[in-house]
Amino acid sequence: MHMQSPPVNSLSLDFLTEFCINVEKLEMDKTCRGLIITSSQPKVFSARLDIMEMYGKSPERCGEFWRAVQEMWLKLYSSDMVTIAAINGSSPAGGCLMSLTCDYRIMADNPRYSIGLNETQLGIVAPFWFKDTMVNTVGHRTTELALELGLLYSPSEALKVGLVDLLVPEDEVLTTATKTMTKWLAIPDHARQITKSMMRKPTIDKLTSKREADIQNFVSFITKDSIQKSLRMYLEMLKKRRG
Amino acid sequence: MHMQSPPVNSLSLDFLTEFCINVEKLEMDKTCRGLIITSSQPKVFSARLDIMEMYGKSPERCGEFWRAVQEMWLKLYSSDMVTIAAINGSSPAGGCLMSLTCDYRIMADNPRYSIGLNETQLGIVAPFWFKDTMVNTVGHRTTELALELGLLYSPSEALKVGLVDLLVPEDEVLTTATKTMTKWLAIPDHARQITKSMMRKPTIDKLTSKREADIQNFVSFITKDSIQKSLRMYLEMLKKRRG
Amino acid sequence: MHMQSPPVNSLSLDFLTEFCINVEKLEMDKTCRGLIITSSQPKVFSARLDIMEMYGKSPERCGEFWRAVQEMWLKLYSSDMVTIAAINGSSPAGGCLMSLTCDYRIMADNPRYSIGLNETQLGIVAPFWFKDTMVNTVGHRTTELALELGLLYSPSEALKVGLVDLLVPEDEVLTTATKTMTKWLAIPDHARQITKSMMRKPTIDKLTSKREADIQNFVSFITKDSIQKSLRMYLEMLKKRRG
Repeated sequence: MHMQSPPVNSLSLDFLTEFCINVEKLEMDKTCRGLIITSSQPKVFSARLDIMEMYGKSPERCGEFWRAVQEMWLKLYSSDMVTIAAINGSSPAGGCLMSLTCDYRIMADNPRYSIGLNETQLGIVAPFWFKDTMVNTVGHRTTELALELGLLYSPSEALKVGLVDLLVPEDEVLTTATKTMTKWLAIPDHARQITKSMMRKPTIDKLTSKREADIQNFVSFITKDSIQKSLRMYLEMLKKRRG
Repeated sequence: MHMQSPPVNSLSLDFLTEFCINVEKLEMDKTCRGLIITSSQPKVFSARLDIMEMYGKSPERCGEFWRAVQEMWLKLYSSDMVTIAAINGSSPAGGCLMSLTCDYRIMADNPRYSIGLNETQLGIVAPFWFKDTMVNTVGHRTTELALELGLLYSPSEALKVGLVDLLVPEDEVLTTATKTMTKWLAIPDHARQITKSMMRKPTIDKLTSKREADIQNFVSFITKDSIQKSLRMYLEMLKKRRG
Repeated sequence: MHMQSPPVNSLSLDFLTEFCINVEKLEMDKTCRGLIITSSQPKVFSARLDIMEMYGKSPERCGEFWRAVQEMWLKLYSSDMVTIAAINGSSPAGGCLMSLTCDYRIMADNPRYSIGLNETQLGIVAPFWFKDTMVNTVGHRTTELALELGLLYSPSEALKVGLVDLLVPEDEVLTTATKTMTKWLAIPDHARQITKSMMRKPTIDKLTSKREADIQNFVSFITKDSIQKSLRMYLEMLKKRRG
């Protein structure tokens, strides 16, 4: 599945809604056993959650957006399919989260790209289920450091801490993902699926049982004056950098 | 304690029953403070759970077998003795589990040997307490990869991910285990035992409280037609390979 | 904050009480956003819990002492400030615990120094919250090995297992800590604090809810004849070594 949402695959409400519908269709299609997620945009896998969905919006709209982010995570992290992230560009925040839901992560070995949950750098906070997903991948201490400082890792640093599983030259990301998929699909589906569920179910159940409280929490945080001000400053900084 | 069950130390019901009785005797013998587990069979530490105990057997017999596997794990993982695995041969599946219950793992540095929980390769599934034991040893992400793909590691790979603690030349495995035991026995028993219990009790309590449900789950899974067919194919493959 | 309690910064009841008052003052002072903990004593960061507080004392006094140790841990592990340990000397037992509560650990690269929770070597036992703090830092398996054997790590070993984050030459420990603090203070406080709390709250809540039982447990253990005898032997060994 190629993500196409120019210019940087920001995760907007529309994008997430369509994405979830597509994943659900593939999940129902019993001939589809694996999913490779990659980007059609140059230099970027997925930029982040779309800040325009959090800035100057009504609480209702913010809540709707957050539910869609949760839905994306729930669908991917619990997918019965083999999921592989072919990370062919930078992958901060929401893009990193999407990668972390996959069974395997292959990243382009380009030192200009980076990956990480850098929310604190923007003055916002990764919620508990972002944190849980990262702890499941790189352990408690690396997650603590990464989230407190909002660290973005270069591909070689990301490999070292276990945030990605494999680095390959940029033009081999997709072919390597395809080869890796073949290896994963050689495992009997039912045994792999039961095993995957055993590893991830406690983390998934936690969000499912706290979903409404998590939305409430996000909305009351993001609509604060001080947070809105942080986002405005960040948007202005982005504008300047582009222009 | 030398495991002697030719040709490959498969963990059969008889073997497990005798093994548990012997461990219990040593546990009661207050002059015995440490246990080194090794194999008398060439090239194999312990092959795996005996597939003949799971193929074509009645549900009652399967349940009895599974209870014996649980008992072996419970006895070893909670042992007051210092337990050291002297892994002088390959150690897949059940053999890997047995190693993981020990306080320390020393493996022969022979690239033809391998170790891992490779159940998914056979179309079966490692239960939650195999998984918990592995997570306690190598962490969540390495366990997820290993169990979903049924990975078998070479000794050097096993050392790298932390599945074993030390590699030595094949003919030094047992002498190194003895030297290591001396080091461990220099620690005051009561302090070491309280500490070991603190580290392992939550994992042990989890199986103890779910023991009957886990047996039910195993029996209903293993007696399925599709699983029995997988086991038959695997047994035929083994026969062909041998000759 | 420089620890000054000659000769080896043992954590006595008086020292801990004063330490906690000072930390609390800084915590209330909203102009103070960061805390660097280091030692004014040569060669030692902090030696350990003061054994004289546990040897030959009444149960009431032992309980009072243990409450002060808990208080130190609770204050530091939940601090809203950025906390950095500038470990300019050996840091066994209580000193290691204090380091582990910090957000970042910088140690002098001097092979004569060591760090670790070596309680079992003395015949005593690190309680569950020492263990939890170490698991959060270096993971389950490294903690199991370290606590069962009472391991003390050289600076390079400590870096390798993740017990410290950075080694620098001895005369650069404090300047490096100051530079690191600048980097941490560039992160918006509120986002960093919420993130830190999310990472540590379950571990803190666990001690808070079991605090009285943990004191009871410590007092009944430490006042046992056999444990008092172990401590006396250790104190005599220390005397001989010095004399």
